[in-house]
Amino acid sequence: MSMRHLLSTKDLGRDEAVAILDVAEDMADVAGREVKKLPALRGKTVVNLFFEDSTRTRISFEAAAKRLSADVINFSAKGSSVSKGESLKDTAQTLAAMGADAVVVRHPASGAPSVLAQSGWIDAGIVNAGDGTHEHPTQALLDAFTIRRRLHGAAARGRDLDGVTVTIIGDILHSRVARSNVWLLTTLGARVHLVAPATLVPLGIEGWPVTVGYDLDAAIAADPDVVMMLRIQGERMNAAFFPNAREYARQWGLDDARLAHLPAASLVMHPGPMNRGLEISSKAADSAQSTVLEQVANGVSIRMAVLYLLLSGTVEL
Amino acid sequence: MSMRHLLSTKDLGRDEAVAILDVAEDMADVAGREVKKLPALRGKTVVNLFFEDSTRTRISFEAAAKRLSADVINFSAKGSSVSKGESLKDTAQTLAAMGADAVVVRHPASGAPSVLAQSGWIDAGIVNAGDGTHEHPTQALLDAFTIRRRLHGAAARGRDLDGVTVTIIGDILHSRVARSNVWLLTTLGARVHLVAPATLVPLGIEGWPVTVGYDLDAAIAADPDVVMMLRIQGERMNAAFFPNAREYARQWGLDDARLAHLPAASLVMHPGPMNRGLEISSKAADSAQSTVLEQVANGVSIRMAVLYLLLSGTVEL
Amino acid sequence: MSMRHLLSTKDLGRDEAVAILDVAEDMADVAGREVKKLPALRGKTVVNLFFEDSTRTRISFEAAAKRLSADVINFSAKGSSVSKGESLKDTAQTLAAMGADAVVVRHPASGAPSVLAQSGWIDAGIVNAGDGTHEHPTQALLDAFTIRRRLHGAAARGRDLDGVTVTIIGDILHSRVARSNVWLLTTLGARVHLVAPATLVPLGIEGWPVTVGYDLDAAIAADPDVVMMLRIQGERMNAAFFPNAREYARQWGLDDARLAHLPAASLVMHPGPMNRGLEISSKAADSAQSTVLEQVANGVSIRMAVLYLLLSGTVEL
Repeated sequence: MSMRHLLSTKDLGRDEAVAILDVAEDMADVAGREVKKLPALRGKTVVNLFFEDSTRTRISFEAAAKRLSADVINFSAKGSSVSKGESLKDTAQTLAAMGADAVVVRHPASGAPSVLAQSGWIDAGIVNAGDGTHEHPTQALLDAFTIRRRLHGAAARGRDLDGVTVTIIGDILHSRVARSNVWLLTTLGARVHLVAPATLVPLGIEGWPVTVGYDLDAAIAADPDVVMMLRIQGERMNAAFFPNAREYARQWGLDDARLAHLPAASLVMHPGPMNRGLEISSKAADSAQSTVLEQVANGVSIRMAVLYLLLSGTVEL
Repeated sequence: MSMRHLLSTKDLGRDEAVAILDVAEDMADVAGREVKKLPALRGKTVVNLFFEDSTRTRISFEAAAKRLSADVINFSAKGSSVSKGESLKDTAQTLAAMGADAVVVRHPASGAPSVLAQSGWIDAGIVNAGDGTHEHPTQALLDAFTIRRRLHGAAARGRDLDGVTVTIIGDILHSRVARSNVWLLTTLGARVHLVAPATLVPLGIEGWPVTVGYDLDAAIAADPDVVMMLRIQGERMNAAFFPNAREYARQWGLDDARLAHLPAASLVMHPGPMNRGLEISSKAADSAQSTVLEQVANGVSIRMAVLYLLLSGTVEL
Repeated sequence: MSMRHLLSTKDLGRDEAVAILDVAEDMADVAGREVKKLPALRGKTVVNLFFEDSTRTRISFEAAAKRLSADVINFSAKGSSVSKGESLKDTAQTLAAMGADAVVVRHPASGAPSVLAQSGWIDAGIVNAGDGTHEHPTQALLDAFTIRRRLHGAAARGRDLDGVTVTIIGDILHSRVARSNVWLLTTLGARVHLVAPATLVPLGIEGWPVTVGYDLDAAIAADPDVVMMLRIQGERMNAAFFPNAREYARQWGLDDARLAHLPAASLVMHPGPMNRGLEISSKAADSAQSTVLEQVANGVSIRMAVLYLLLSGTVEL
């Protein structure tokens, strides 16, 4: 198996997704070695092309690429010729001409990475690291990987998420994390339930392969295998979406009381960075059910797997 | 052959310039390999010391240094002790003491890299990556390399640009790219013609080895082998230099009509980033005559050659 | 010998401190080799986590880590999720989860690195690269290393600073460099004298193992082996601390006249970046007695030694 780009999880088939997770299992094993480094991508250049700041995502990709011995070049579009009015096309062609083998793109406009990939402007593999409110596929892959590992441990390889129930809670409207997870988790056989304030549910949600609810307590009473809290963006507060932080936490936060109602085996997930006391209480974040830090660690393994599959053309997996 | 510094193209002799282009041919070959990396500069440290933002130039040097296995340290002078009032001397001596083998300097003041090189403050090789309105020698070298490759293909090694006619168009007054090209291209045997608004022609141009004109259509009618468009800086617009963007494009831009009058074999060059629709039309930029992306790719090869010649003391070429 | 963290010099015993200096001697030897690089930390990841800008310190650690073949990830907390309100705990746990082996921390709050090290949030070795007005231990180690080398040359290994007299001059109140030096130099057997304006002497100085004076000329007349000038922060000027720059230079600066009164064998030190003409004259900074650039060079050796001792668990020194 090899991939040309990773733009969305909507395009991934079940077998393809499972194969990525399996390669990530191999990559996770590398972290346990004496020398945590593989020579696989020596001589390859990975460019982190970030039109939005995101230190966490950038350093996760940077760590992944370096662990595979690739050279990494960070290109923050702020203060660059991009901000002098250069087009995405010219930026992409410039990076291609410089010999970029993969370009990891974060962009405020939904669809920008797909435009890059389909344009023919650039020969490199494109990895979507978050585009507008569209997708964030490596986040969903690391979430699926985390769920699979927790449920199946050492026997996870080759398996999907058949029958697993996942409840995603919060600002679905603006969340690319939610979208990528909806497509990937359902492709892998999970049943996804969304819980959100009515003002934060997107139009057209009838077409999504999910159920939707507006009562968090009821959703928790249904004993989901996984609850996934979304990050609330401060800038949405005091906007039309909901009254204020305290009210949001009361209605939509995973607080200590709700945590107590959750089955002990249910996983608590969050993509980070967390607003402790807002969408998630510290007790929930730090509980044994929480996978927050595993998600971060697994993020490096997933990104290693993705870069490897994009750039290591010679290996069949 | 080895070099101590690369400060300007004015100092380069014909044989020296040809030798750099020939080493760059070898470096370009590396890009075609399975593993696009040479061990030549392992253990060497290249510092990118940028007093002005220039992401394109910085990542081109970074890619070049990494492809030669050097360690790269990026030092943006913004927000550093330099902005706390540290002198250029102390910055240079600090980098020398830290073991920098080469320092790639971009500085708003003309002559700053030469001051560094001649001061004795620092032992490292100094590469001028653009200083004020003075020079940008690697840009001119990559331009000469691009012209030579297009004209002579696989038979380019050892050759100069004897008899080639090059017309450079635009804001000559503020352009270090124009200056570096004037010196280098004429040293290599080319005949250079400058075309600019009268307000953007520098004083003292009578002493340059060029001809000067004020009519772009006439210059194109002379069938030059190469037209090189300069980037217009937005901040010059609405200043005393010329009325506005639309007027500039009409009089001094390579638009579709002018492109049609140019011989099919003439090259269209631009150092990037382009203002499409201003100094160059999209049709011209993307035409088969355009070398814009080759210039970017060749920039990495030229910078590899320069760093190699500066730092690899043991090899005779 | 191995170390878990380097948080302060107050905790270091004499033998431990001497051992670090001895390892740094070995590291300094590497700088003299043909290939200035050791494979010791291949596969290790060093994160520079800087909550304050400090280009000099950051690139010194970066150069040190790269010379040991570690991968380096720079994390400037500005514009990151930290500035979106993420706690130090979550940042630390995130870096741990990503596989950071060592985290070099600069933080405006005194004690932040110790909190990180003692929290259990992160398994990585923590190096304090400057915390508030508390400590800057690698600066003191490089200062001690510089003094020892100047005094004992090739015979420095194994020795301490018994009986050496060091006079530290300037803004003691706000200086973490002064604090780290007081603890380390006295541990190594030096006698430390502090000279400062009365407004810049900290409360509780009676408990420090030093003598304090308020007359720089008298201190110089005592023929100290070493005078160490502290950097004056511009933002302290015009505050309550002292009248103005000129007055500061007159009373507390090492000017040419005072330099002339100093014994020819006395060392002149400054941690950089210097305010020439303020706390130190150019003549003093550039004199043969000045160790300013040796301090910078030795800084890389000390930081190599510290990272090596933290991360290379298998080697006994």
